[in-house]
Amino acid sequence: MAFTPTDYNPYDFANRRHIGPSPAEMEDMLAAVGVRSLDELIDQTVPASIRQARPLGWAPLSEHELTAKMTEVAAKNRVMTSLIGQGYYGTVTPPAIQRNILENPAWYTAYTPYQPEIAQGRLEALLNFQTMVCDLTGLDVANASLLDEATAAAEAMAMAERVAKSKAKAFFVDRFCHPQTIAVIRTRALPLGIEVIEDMVENLDPEKVFGAIFQYPGSYGHVRDYTAEIAALHGAGAVAVVATDLLALCLLKEPGAMGADIAIGSSQRFGVQMGYGGPHAAFMAVKDAHKRQMPGRIVGVSIDANGNPAYRLSLQTREQHIRREKATSNVCTAQALLAVMASMYAVFHGPKGLRAIAERVHLRTQRLARALKAAGAKVSPKAFFDTITVEVGVGQAGILAAARAEGLNFRKIGNNRVGISLDETTDERVLVKVLRAFGILGLPPHRAALGFPEEMLRETPYLTHPVFHMNRAESEMMRYMRRLSDRDLALDRAMIPLGSCTMKLNAAAEMMPITWPEFATLHPFVPADQAAGYTEAINDLTVKLCEITGYDAFSMQPNSGAQGEYAGLMTILAYHRARGDHDRKICLIPISAHGTNPASAQMAGMEVVVVKSSPNGDVDVEDFRAKAEAAGNRLAACMITYPSTHGVFEETVREVCQITHEFGGQVYIDGANMNAMVGLVKPGEIGGDVSHLNLHKTFAIPHGGGGPGMGPIGVRAHLAPHLPGHPETGGAEGPVSAAPYGSASILLISWAYCLMMGGAGLTQATRVAILNANYIAARLKGAYGVLYMGNKGRVAHECILDTRPFAEAGVTVDDIAKRLIDNGFHAPTMSWPVAGTLMVEPTESETKAEIDRFITALLAIREEIAAVEKGEISAEDSPLRHAPHTVEDLVADWTRKYPREQGCFPPGSFREDKYWPPVGRVDNVYGDRNLVCTCPPVESYAQAAE
Amino acid sequence: MAFTPTDYNPYDFANRRHIGPSPAEMEDMLAAVGVRSLDELIDQTVPASIRQARPLGWAPLSEHELTAKMTEVAAKNRVMTSLIGQGYYGTVTPPAIQRNILENPAWYTAYTPYQPEIAQGRLEALLNFQTMVCDLTGLDVANASLLDEATAAAEAMAMAERVAKSKAKAFFVDRFCHPQTIAVIRTRALPLGIEVIEDMVENLDPEKVFGAIFQYPGSYGHVRDYTAEIAALHGAGAVAVVATDLLALCLLKEPGAMGADIAIGSSQRFGVQMGYGGPHAAFMAVKDAHKRQMPGRIVGVSIDANGNPAYRLSLQTREQHIRREKATSNVCTAQALLAVMASMYAVFHGPKGLRAIAERVHLRTQRLARALKAAGAKVSPKAFFDTITVEVGVGQAGILAAARAEGLNFRKIGNNRVGISLDETTDERVLVKVLRAFGILGLPPHRAALGFPEEMLRETPYLTHPVFHMNRAESEMMRYMRRLSDRDLALDRAMIPLGSCTMKLNAAAEMMPITWPEFATLHPFVPADQAAGYTEAINDLTVKLCEITGYDAFSMQPNSGAQGEYAGLMTILAYHRARGDHDRKICLIPISAHGTNPASAQMAGMEVVVVKSSPNGDVDVEDFRAKAEAAGNRLAACMITYPSTHGVFEETVREVCQITHEFGGQVYIDGANMNAMVGLVKPGEIGGDVSHLNLHKTFAIPHGGGGPGMGPIGVRAHLAPHLPGHPETGGAEGPVSAAPYGSASILLISWAYCLMMGGAGLTQATRVAILNANYIAARLKGAYGVLYMGNKGRVAHECILDTRPFAEAGVTVDDIAKRLIDNGFHAPTMSWPVAGTLMVEPTESETKAEIDRFITALLAIREEIAAVEKGEISAEDSPLRHAPHTVEDLVADWTRKYPREQGCFPPGSFREDKYWPPVGRVDNVYGDRNLVCTCPPVESYAQAAE
Repeated sequence: MAFTPTDYNPYDFANRRHIGPSPAEMEDMLAAVGVRSLDELIDQTVPASIRQARPLGWAPLSEHELTAKMTEVAAKNRVMTSLIGQGYYGTVTPPAIQRNILENPAWYTAYTPYQPEIAQGRLEALLNFQTMVCDLTGLDVANASLLDEATAAAEAMAMAERVAKSKAKAFFVDRFCHPQTIAVIRTRALPLGIEVIEDMVENLDPEKVFGAIFQYPGSYGHVRDYTAEIAALHGAGAVAVVATDLLALCLLKEPGAMGADIAIGSSQRFGVQMGYGGPHAAFMAVKDAHKRQMPGRIVGVSIDANGNPAYRLSLQTREQHIRREKATSNVCTAQALLAVMASMYAVFHGPKGLRAIAERVHLRTQRLARALKAAGAKVSPKAFFDTITVEVGVGQAGILAAARAEGLNFRKIGNNRVGISLDETTDERVLVKVLRAFGILGLPPHRAALGFPEEMLRETPYLTHPVFHMNRAESEMMRYMRRLSDRDLALDRAMIPLGSCTMKLNAAAEMMPITWPEFATLHPFVPADQAAGYTEAINDLTVKLCEITGYDAFSMQPNSGAQGEYAGLMTILAYHRARGDHDRKICLIPISAHGTNPASAQMAGMEVVVVKSSPNGDVDVEDFRAKAEAAGNRLAACMITYPSTHGVFEETVREVCQITHEFGGQVYIDGANMNAMVGLVKPGEIGGDVSHLNLHKTFAIPHGGGGPGMGPIGVRAHLAPHLPGHPETGGAEGPVSAAPYGSASILLISWAYCLMMGGAGLTQATRVAILNANYIAARLKGAYGVLYMGNKGRVAHECILDTRPFAEAGVTVDDIAKRLIDNGFHAPTMSWPVAGTLMVEPTESETKAEIDRFITALLAIREEIAAVEKGEISAEDSPLRHAPHTVEDLVADWTRKYPREQGCFPPGSFREDKYWPPVGRVDNVYGDRNLVCTCPPVESYAQAAE
Repeated sequence: MAFTPTDYNPYDFANRRHIGPSPAEMEDMLAAVGVRSLDELIDQTVPASIRQARPLGWAPLSEHELTAKMTEVAAKNRVMTSLIGQGYYGTVTPPAIQRNILENPAWYTAYTPYQPEIAQGRLEALLNFQTMVCDLTGLDVANASLLDEATAAAEAMAMAERVAKSKAKAFFVDRFCHPQTIAVIRTRALPLGIEVIEDMVENLDPEKVFGAIFQYPGSYGHVRDYTAEIAALHGAGAVAVVATDLLALCLLKEPGAMGADIAIGSSQRFGVQMGYGGPHAAFMAVKDAHKRQMPGRIVGVSIDANGNPAYRLSLQTREQHIRREKATSNVCTAQALLAVMASMYAVFHGPKGLRAIAERVHLRTQRLARALKAAGAKVSPKAFFDTITVEVGVGQAGILAAARAEGLNFRKIGNNRVGISLDETTDERVLVKVLRAFGILGLPPHRAALGFPEEMLRETPYLTHPVFHMNRAESEMMRYMRRLSDRDLALDRAMIPLGSCTMKLNAAAEMMPITWPEFATLHPFVPADQAAGYTEAINDLTVKLCEITGYDAFSMQPNSGAQGEYAGLMTILAYHRARGDHDRKICLIPISAHGTNPASAQMAGMEVVVVKSSPNGDVDVEDFRAKAEAAGNRLAACMITYPSTHGVFEETVREVCQITHEFGGQVYIDGANMNAMVGLVKPGEIGGDVSHLNLHKTFAIPHGGGGPGMGPIGVRAHLAPHLPGHPETGGAEGPVSAAPYGSASILLISWAYCLMMGGAGLTQATRVAILNANYIAARLKGAYGVLYMGNKGRVAHECILDTRPFAEAGVTVDDIAKRLIDNGFHAPTMSWPVAGTLMVEPTESETKAEIDRFITALLAIREEIAAVEKGEISAEDSPLRHAPHTVEDLVADWTRKYPREQGCFPPGSFREDKYWPPVGRVDNVYGDRNLVCTCPPVESYAQAAE
C-alpha cells in the first residue's frame, strides 16, 4: 500500500478554528435547510444581481504565522518615553488587572449588560467606575463611559445647550483646552449651528454663551480656580463644563467644589495604556438636576424578583429618544472594558494610593521645574500639576531632537516652546534624561513643595465606599475580579445569538498582540517614524477593507459605529459643500433603519425624512422615489442598511441607490450587517458611496461588555478628500474623534482576523453565517413564526422569530428571554426591529452542537408556552414567568406549580456546568422598555415627521 | 496648613500586594494572638539561638520596575531557530491554550487533585493525557506525567528491575538514546548497584540484563523495528523499555505493537515551549500487568455518593509505599499543568491533525535529506522521521557557524557531524536557510515520499475517544477549557490552607515573563551566548538564594523537591567518596520526616535509620545521638526538616547538626518549611550542609494543579564541587535531570518574586506567615486541640488541629475536609504528619478576611460535630457526612435531617459566589488512604527497620 499523506491542514484557522460547524456538520445542516449545497443556499439568499465578480484575493496566515508577522510589525514601532501629555499619559497597568480582565475572555467577550441577570459582575465594576468619577469630580451622577475625552467634550456642549436657561447660540472654549478637544467641538458645533468662541478664559463674556468649557489643569499645564467664572456663567443662565484629569483631582480642588455643572475627561491614565490613541474610557459627571439629559449609559441599583438588590442599566432611554428629532447625541457604544479596568485600578490603589501617585507625579514635576528654572530656563505656567512648558525659541528643533536622543518625546508647542508632562511611570532616571536634553546634568534634591497655591489643594474625601477600601492584596483583588466575572455569562461560556450585534469568536491569537508593549505604550501623537509598525498595519488593513467593501479609501478615526455614521454623513455634507451644494440637507432613512441612523443624521444637521417599508419589510421603493423627488436638489443622502435590519437581501437595493444618485444624493450603506456580505457583495459596487464598518461586530473585535468598538468609514474616491482630518495629521475637515486613528490598538484585532482568515476564509465565514441562520430558521419553523424570509424563503445571517402570537396567553418576549438564561444563553435581540420578536444571529463561529443546544432550548420553551396556551398552567405560575431560576429558589421552600427539575434544568441547559444567575428577574422601571441595542427605534422620527 | 505628602508607597509589592493582612488587620490579629507586636511573636516562636545576624540585603522592585528589568534581561537572550532536537523541539502553542490554560490562574494556581470533588476539571484533562499516551504508545495504562524524559527513563529502569523475571543486575542502554537520558540513567543506576551496558542494539545480549531501553526514533534519527529484540528480552525474562516521541508515533508503528513493556518520553512538542529546558510533561505507559508498579500519578474513574461517575487519582499508594525499604522511586511532583496543555493540544488537533503535523514534519525532513544527498552530502540514517545527521568532517565548526549566521542552531555531534531535527514550526523558509548553511541554493520539489520503510507505518488508529473528536472550533475549545476550570477550586477563588504545601499567591507580574518568546522558545542546549539573559537571571537568583540560605553554591538542576533531596544526598555521597569514605551510607531520618526523605535516601543507596520523636514532636536527641554513635564512621548524613514537619522550631537543631558532624556525617535540611525561615534563619548557618528549596512552595511558583515544581539545592562550599553535572555543561558528577537548569523557565517566577519582595519584604512575609498561623491557632484553640505548640505556646507557619477526639462520635477527618468544600475551601493537609489531624498553613498572602472566613467555617463545623456528640443528630445523618453538597442534592427530594440552607450555605460560605462541586463525595477505594501530599508517612520505614 503506497503512502498517501493526509489531506488536512491543521493550521487552517478559518475552517478549523474560526468557523464553527465542521464540514460534516454542515452537510447535516444543509439537509435540514433543504438544499444540496452551500452554493445553492447562497444562490437562494443573495441575489445574483449584487454578487461581486471576483473572490477576495489574499492567502491566509496560520496562528503561528500571524504571531511571527505581528512580532515583525511590532518591532517597527519604537517604544519611547512619551512626555507629550495632551490627554494621554504613561500609566502602570497592574499586572493582575491586565491578566485577569484585559486578557480574560470572561471579561472581554461579554456583551453590553442589557440583560442584567447575567451581567451583575460587570455592572458592579461599572458602578464602581461611576462612583469613582462622581467622587473625584465632586459631582452627583456619572455615566459608565464615553468614547474619548474630545467627543465627551462635544457631548457636553450639546448637553449644555439642552439644559441651559440661556438662549445664546454660542459656546465658549477655553484656549487651554487640548487642541484635539477644540477641534472635535468645532466639528460637532458646525452642523448644530453653534458658534464656538475660542479664547482666553479672561475674555469670557457669560452673557454671550449658553455654556463654556474649561480645561483643568490646562493643556499647557495651567492650574487655576474657575469658581468665579462658573458663578458668572450661572448668573447668565449658562452651563459650566470642566474638562479635567482624574489623577490631578486626587490632589486638586474638584470641579464640583467650583460649582461646575458637568465634568468630562479621560480615565486612560488609570491603568489603561495609550495604545496609539485608544481605546480608553472617557467619563462624564453632572449635577443631579441634569442626569436625565446625560448621554451614555448609567448603571443603577434595582431589585430582583425575590426583592434582593440587583444592578441594572437605568435611564436607558437616552437623549436621542427623549428629544427625538432634536437629538444631539447618537452615543451607542461605550468603553466598558476600559472603564472596568480604570475602576479596578482605583480599587487596586484606593484613595490613599491614588493620592500618593498624584503627589509623586506632581512633586517630580515641581522638581523638574525647579531644576529648569535654576538653570535659567523660562518655565510656564506658574501653577501646574504635571505639565510644564519651556520657552526654547529657535532651539525648539534641537531640544526635541536631544530629547529623542534620550529616548523621550516632548510636546512641540508652536515653534518656540516644548511641553513636558510627567506621569506615574516617570522615575528619577527619566527626570535625569529630561534635564540632559536641556544640557543640565544632575537633579536638584527632592522637596515636598507644591507647584500650585495651597488653596487649590483638595479638601474633600473621595472613594469612601468600602469597595475602594478592600484589602487590595493581590489574592483579594484576583478573587474579586474572578467572582465578578463568574456572575456574568459571556461568549466564553455560551452562544450569544444577538441579532445585529454579531457576537462572533474573538480568537486568542487576534487578541494577544494588543497587550504587547510595542503596540500598547505608544502615544497617539508620536512622530510617524516611531509608529511605522502601526502605519503598516493600518495601511494593510485599509487595503483589505477596500477590497472587501469596494471602496477606495478609509478613515480609521471613528471609534464607534454611531461615530462612523456621523463621520460618513459629515463627509457627504463636506462633499456637497465643496460643490457649492449648501442646501442638500435631506437624508432619507427607511423606517427599518437602526436607531442611530437618524440620530447621526440629526447631529450632522440633516433633515431626516423617513421612508416606509413594504409589507415584506423591504424599503418601499415607490415611497422612496416619491420622497427623493420631493427632496429634489435638497437631497443630501439616503441611509440604508444592507442586508436590511430585517435580515433580508433586498432585491431593490441597486434601484434605491440609483434613485438617490439620480437626485444628486449620496448613498450611505450602514455596515452593521456586513457579516452577511463579506466576500459576496461589496457595498461600494452596489451603489454605496460611504459605509461604516462595525469592526467590533464583523471583524472580530470583542464587545468588551459594552465597548470598545471601532467604526471606520470607507468611501468612494470622490469622497476621499472630505474624510475627517485631525490637528495632528492634517486634512481639510475637522476630526470626529480625539485620536487620528481612533482606538488604534484594537485595529490590530481586525487586521489579525483578516490576515488569518484570508479572502477565501472570510467569504466562507459569510456563507456559514448565512447557513447557521437558515438552519435555525428551518429547525424552528412551525414552532415559531419566522418573519421576513426573502422571496426564496431564506433569511440572511439572522432570523426574526415572532413571539406576538403568545401574547394572548400572557407570555411575553421577556419571559422567553429570561427563560433562556435558565438554559445558559444570552437572549437574542428583543423587540427590534419589530416589537414582540426575537432576532437571532448565530454568526459563523458557533458550532452545530451549540446551535442545536439553542434550538433544543427554544423548542422546549415553545412546549412550555403551549402548556400555558392549553391552560395547563397559567403564565404567572409557569417557569417562563419565574425565569431565570436561581440557587436561592432551590434552597427556599418550593411552592411552584412545576418541579424544581423543570425549573432549573430545562432541555438544553448544561447539568454539571450549569450557569446560575446570581439574581432573579430584575424589575424594570419606567423608560427601560427598549432593550434592543438600546438605540431607539426609528418610528419615533416617523411620528415626529408627520 | 502646610502640604504634607502622603506617607504611602502605592508600588510596595511586598506589603500591599503579596502579604495578605494590612497593617491595621495585623494589629487586630496580634491582639487575638495575645502579643503586643510582631517582633514579640517572632521572638516567642523562633529561638534566638538560631536567628540570623544580618537582615537580607537587597531593595525591592515594583511590578513596573520588574517588568522593565525582565524586558531588559529577555533581550539578552537570542531567539534562534533551534534544530538541535535531542528531545526538545519547536512547537506551536495554540494561542487559545496559552491564554486559557497556561496564563489562566484558574488552572495554574490549582493544587494536586487529591480532593477529587473540587478537581474534576483537571482530572478530566489529565485523563485525556493518559488516554492520549496510551493510544499513541499502544500500551494499556499511562500515568499523568513524570518530570522529564531522562528521569522517566531512569524510573523505567528502576521499574524494570522490579517487574523483571530475570535476576540479572545489568540494564542495557541503546547507544542511540539521548546523551542526557543515558547520563541520568547512569546517575540513577550507580547507587542502586545496577550495571549499565551502553552499546549498539546489535550487541544486546538478553541473558545478561533485566531490561533494556531503546530510543525510537533514535537520538540521531534512526527508525527501526525492535520487535525481535523485545521478543528476545522477553525470552530471557527481561523487560523492554522504549523511549519514544509522541509526534513520531502519529506516523510510525507504536512501541506496543513491537511488544514493549514500558514506553517513556516527553510530551513537550505537543504545544509546550522548550523554555530552556522546561517544564514539560514526561510520560510513562505500561502494560496492564505492570500498572501497580508504575511510579507517578494515575487518574481513574470512580463514582460519587449519588452514584454518578467521578474522576479521582487512583493507585495513590505508589511504589515507595508498596516497597518500603526497597523503594526505587521518590516521585512526588508531576507536571500536571504541562500535561494538561499537551492533552489540550491533542484535543485541539485531533488524530487527523496530529497525523498531518507528523507527516509535514517528516516530508520536510525527507525533502531536506534529498536536497543534501543531491548535493553530495553524506546523510544518515537511512530510515528517519524528523532527524538526520550530516557528516561534515573538519568543516563542522564552519557549518555550525554558517547555520548560526542563518539564525539556526544545528546539533554538534562528535567532531565531524551535525544533527538537524525538524519540527512543527519548520517551514520552507527554514529549509532554505538550512540548505544555504551548506552552500546549497534552492529547494527540491515537495514529494510525498517516505524516509523510512512503509512497513514501519503505523497501522492502528489512535485518539478514538470522542473528546479527541469534538468540533475543535475555538469557540468550542475555549468553552471546554472554561467548563473544566470552573469545576475546580483553585487559589484564584479561595484559600488553600494546605500544611507543608505553602499555597501562596502566584502574582501575575511574576507569571507574565515566562510566556515571552525570549524566554519560552530557547532550546536547553543552545550555545551559552544565546542564553545570556537566562544566565543573568539564574546567577542573580543563585546569589539571592545563597544569601537567604547561608549556603555557598546552588544547583538549579533538580526539577522537583524529591529530585532535590536525591541530588543533595548524591552530592553528600560524592563528597564522602572523594575523601575515600566509601562506607558512609547510613542516613538518620526522624520519624516525623516527609515521606520522600527516606525514599530519596533509598534511591541514593543509603541505609535509612529512623530516629524517634520525643512526645512534643521534636527529634529525640538522645535517640539521635545513640544512632549516630552506632553508625560511627558509617554515618553519611542526617535528613531533618526545619522547622519540623510538626511545625515547630526545635531548639535542639544545632545540637542535632553538631552530633552529625561529630561523627563525620553531613546534614541535609529539607527546605519544605523554608517559608518559616526566610530572612530569620539560614539553614546553612545553623548546621546544614545541603538543602533543597521547594521553589513551588516558598518561592511563588504556582502548583499548576500538580506540578511543575523546582527543587534546586544549596550547599556549603565543601560540597560545591560535587553538585550534579550535565553532559552539556560539564561537571564531575552525573546529572539528575534532563536539562542543566531543570525547568529553567519557571526559575524566572522565583527570581521575580525575590526581586519584587526585596530582602525586607521576604522577611516580613515569613513573619506574617507565622502570624497568620498563630492567629488561626489562637482563634481555634478551645474548639479544636492544637498539637505541637513550641515551648512558648506558639506554632511556626502552620498549625495541627486534632480531630481524633471526634472519632468517638463517628466524625472523621474526611468529614471535616469534605464539609469545608461546602464552605468553598480546599481542605488542609489531612492525617499528616499525624493521623487524625488537619495541618493548616495559611501562608502570608492570605488576608485576614479570608482567614476569618476559614475560621468561621471551622467553628461552624465544630458546632455540627458538637451536635453529633450531643446525640442531636447521628454522624451518618449529619451534614458532615453528606458533604460536599451539590446542586443535584438541592434539585432532588430533600430527605435529610437538616435543612437545605444548613447543608448548602454553612457559615463562611459565599452566597452569591458559592462554589458548587460538580460531584458529591467520591468513593475511596483500596490504597487511597494516604492523601497527604501523597508521599507516604515515614512510619513504614520505622516498621521495616525494626
